[in-house]
Amino acid sequence: MTDRPVWNARPHLLSIEEWGYKIDDYLENADGGEIIFNINPDDDRVYDAIYIGGGAAGRFGSAYLKALGGRQLVVDAWPFLGGSCPHNACVPHHLFSDCAAELMLNREFSGRYWFSDLDNKIVNMKEIVDMFRKGRIGPHAIMNFQSKEQLDMEFILNTTARIIDPHTVEAAGRIFKTRNIVLSTGSTPNRLGIPGENLKGVFDYETFVEDLDYEPGDTAVVVGGGKTAAIYGCFFNATGRRTILVVRSTLLKLVPDSEIRGYLIDRMKEQGMEILEYSNLVRIENDGNGRVKAAIIETPDGERRVETDFIFTGIGDTPNSEQVAATLGLKLGDKKEVIVDEQLRTNVPNVYAVGDLIGAPMEMFKARKSGTYAARHIMGQDVSYSPRDFPDFVHTHYEVTWFGMSEDEAREVYDNVIIIKMPPENENGLNVGLPASDRMMLYALEKPHLSGYQKLIIDGASRKVLGIHHVGCGAKDGFQYLCRMIKAGITVDDLGEMDELFLNPTHFIQLSRLRAGNEVLIDL
Amino acid sequence: MTDRPVWNARPHLLSIEEWGYKIDDYLENADGGEIIFNINPDDDRVYDAIYIGGGAAGRFGSAYLKALGGRQLVVDAWPFLGGSCPHNACVPHHLFSDCAAELMLNREFSGRYWFSDLDNKIVNMKEIVDMFRKGRIGPHAIMNFQSKEQLDMEFILNTTARIIDPHTVEAAGRIFKTRNIVLSTGSTPNRLGIPGENLKGVFDYETFVEDLDYEPGDTAVVVGGGKTAAIYGCFFNATGRRTILVVRSTLLKLVPDSEIRGYLIDRMKEQGMEILEYSNLVRIENDGNGRVKAAIIETPDGERRVETDFIFTGIGDTPNSEQVAATLGLKLGDKKEVIVDEQLRTNVPNVYAVGDLIGAPMEMFKARKSGTYAARHIMGQDVSYSPRDFPDFVHTHYEVTWFGMSEDEAREVYDNVIIIKMPPENENGLNVGLPASDRMMLYALEKPHLSGYQKLIIDGASRKVLGIHHVGCGAKDGFQYLCRMIKAGITVDDLGEMDELFLNPTHFIQLSRLRAGNEVLIDL
Repeated sequence: MTDRPVWNARPHLLSIEEWGYKIDDYLENADGGEIIFNINPDDDRVYDAIYIGGGAAGRFGSAYLKALGGRQLVVDAWPFLGGSCPHNACVPHHLFSDCAAELMLNREFSGRYWFSDLDNKIVNMKEIVDMFRKGRIGPHAIMNFQSKEQLDMEFILNTTARIIDPHTVEAAGRIFKTRNIVLSTGSTPNRLGIPGENLKGVFDYETFVEDLDYEPGDTAVVVGGGKTAAIYGCFFNATGRRTILVVRSTLLKLVPDSEIRGYLIDRMKEQGMEILEYSNLVRIENDGNGRVKAAIIETPDGERRVETDFIFTGIGDTPNSEQVAATLGLKLGDKKEVIVDEQLRTNVPNVYAVGDLIGAPMEMFKARKSGTYAARHIMGQDVSYSPRDFPDFVHTHYEVTWFGMSEDEAREVYDNVIIIKMPPENENGLNVGLPASDRMMLYALEKPHLSGYQKLIIDGASRKVLGIHHVGCGAKDGFQYLCRMIKAGITVDDLGEMDELFLNPTHFIQLSRLRAGNEVLIDL
Repeated sequence: MTDRPVWNARPHLLSIEEWGYKIDDYLENADGGEIIFNINPDDDRVYDAIYIGGGAAGRFGSAYLKALGGRQLVVDAWPFLGGSCPHNACVPHHLFSDCAAELMLNREFSGRYWFSDLDNKIVNMKEIVDMFRKGRIGPHAIMNFQSKEQLDMEFILNTTARIIDPHTVEAAGRIFKTRNIVLSTGSTPNRLGIPGENLKGVFDYETFVEDLDYEPGDTAVVVGGGKTAAIYGCFFNATGRRTILVVRSTLLKLVPDSEIRGYLIDRMKEQGMEILEYSNLVRIENDGNGRVKAAIIETPDGERRVETDFIFTGIGDTPNSEQVAATLGLKLGDKKEVIVDEQLRTNVPNVYAVGDLIGAPMEMFKARKSGTYAARHIMGQDVSYSPRDFPDFVHTHYEVTWFGMSEDEAREVYDNVIIIKMPPENENGLNVGLPASDRMMLYALEKPHLSGYQKLIIDGASRKVLGIHHVGCGAKDGFQYLCRMIKAGITVDDLGEMDELFLNPTHFIQLSRLRAGNEVLIDL
């Protein structure tokens, strides 16, 4: 490790484009290229914190600690900051979801208007992966630029750190002294643990982006029933492939509202997805050349064999905790998550842990916020953090977003639950041209049942909003802000007072206004 | 009028589908079909208000008055409630914008991935208009269903009302007594007032939807520089037509932030749009058969003649006030708007006016809210309404949204204005793969300068948010909610505390968090 050449980035002001070329070179270089060394030689203070891992948690934590006047260092094995998100996680998840949405639209209008004829055609998947692999250098470059030139962070990249003790870290052949260590080493996709899982043709979200070097055939088998499996399964389906979801229990049980979940799953089936619940992939057949030939699936109706050269697993992630735990003697939970308190402190003094490493929810907001809260505590602020009452989402062919209670949950707690939804209860069911979010307009006009679904749940007594649920496009951003108001006790009357930007993806404002005049609220 | 047959809708519970067939029949019927009569025969109260016009203002006002326990009647000349919005205004604006966004995406990736080859191809426009014309019956049907079965409103449709005095209205051959009249007769697109404007081939947004019966050629001339002209111009451009915008002063001056406006206009030009500012269409040539042959345009560089069979005007709307003003003796403003106070009262006792009829802003939120505020005042509530400090938007090929101050406006008022934006100030300019809103993902990866632009403006002293600006997709809904928080004084620190749903179209939360640790804020 220390033999690798070290490039002192400090004196150079690289443009975003120059960073892009450098990162690309290092990633393409079989030797991994130089260590990127960006240490301030004029600062002789001991570090307040060294962040081990420069993903979302480490980078945001570092930036915050620096902003608070502390001295930080962040070390990452990749030649860029930002971690797995732009490299093979959140960003490709979104890219493939975006493709799934576009492809469903194209297929539904195949050969009509300006849309290409995709009937019985399979879209090249490797081409899309290659596009992402090439394009991801852009976000990497901007994050190095932002971290160095705008946020003035110190970092060492493209090498691993060795933790000697809670106050001592070695990186790039140098010893760094620190008051604290913040562990932010992320997580890794779980493996199946079944025969054949090492065959060529078995992927998770990381290896799909990194290793796909052939065009998969006409059948995809996807293992999992959560976010990753749904996102990638819908994408494979939208490319025109037969797609079979193998779900240990039930599909998308993380979606809290049963009507919303039903709508989603009906649409997935309508797009031709095959869903095997209470089923397990138990064995993968070898074609004799080390490649996947077939998936053997145990279902409630017996064993099924599906010929395929492409299997994708989306069965959760496990914190990258083993090595750091062994080095430092950290206490781990059942799922290998590092146990921390609400100040993000581990059981070892002066060692903090943040991000995916501390377990669920493995979401971006928690990674970033836990990183900053560790920084604040280290810098002497009296703070505590625990991710609670947050909005959530999943992509299928749609964008699905929710916050607060489901209808069933609300009915368990409140006597007088009011439901405002679109389409409304009516004998045409979903065959109604509303809601029509952006990007759903064509469906709304020709295929109304595809145009989305939304629901607002209100306590009739206090008139407060209890839950919001949306399927469509364009609502996700709003849920970030709306949830804060709901936590503060917003009512149906407050909603009705807002100024909608019509056509708005969520119809919550105008639908609330249609009912707000009622002293005794009723459904809509 | 009274000779027309009257169909008593009251006893019938029509499904949304049945309403659809009925509305379609009446619209297609040369005689206009029957009058739709939905009056409660068991209620012998005098009406609290009769709404003249059942568009957004009249329908929401009626619903609210009914909810408050009052008795209302709404009369509309169309066989459906909801007015021009779903018929030929907001909804088709959005449909064509949605098509423009999709078409730009398709053109930028023409013939690649799954996208059809649109190079040098013109997309059929009439086909899209026909789709809308057929599909709009859906929203009409749901609004009649909602108004009757869910909101229990009384209405008379497919006929005009005759106002006899502020307490007496005749409709469907019957006299109705009322305590008040609420005028909500909307507005009509302005006309050019130039030679040739009555030729076949000259359209505004109403006639484009109602009358287009041929496929326009390869050149579109669009007159106007505001929302309607931009929306339709971008759509015509995206279909592959040469599109010339003729703007009396400067294009899109309603977009407050100059950088945002510059970004938009650069993209319009990049898509090939020709923009003639400080120019006027002065004459339209006749081809000898009553059709448009050419547009004669006065520009700062002299007169230009453009051969075309298609001219579109988007030069604002004028309130439909003349007839009601003459009947009732109403006071009108310079732009023919009915003058009202903050209780929506006209100068004539017991006569209110709401919606587009009272002038700018002619936006959906104002129509609906003014309707409900008139209802509240009529029902004895001590309220006042005036549209102030609202979020706003326009569609180009993009969705553009803003609220609050522009950068220039902020700098005039505050000493220490902090700008947080994406892409950041950098020597690569816009050639940076962020922001990447939903639907912008493909651009972000391959054509970064198309992936959007966003800006957060903060007062460095108070740390409060002064303005927000966004170009991309998926932010419009959020601006509805975010603006309420900004009005309540939200700070950069509050933003940094929220839980983002990543990848979020607005990067405001995470970018704020990167700076929130700084005691003295600086740009990002």
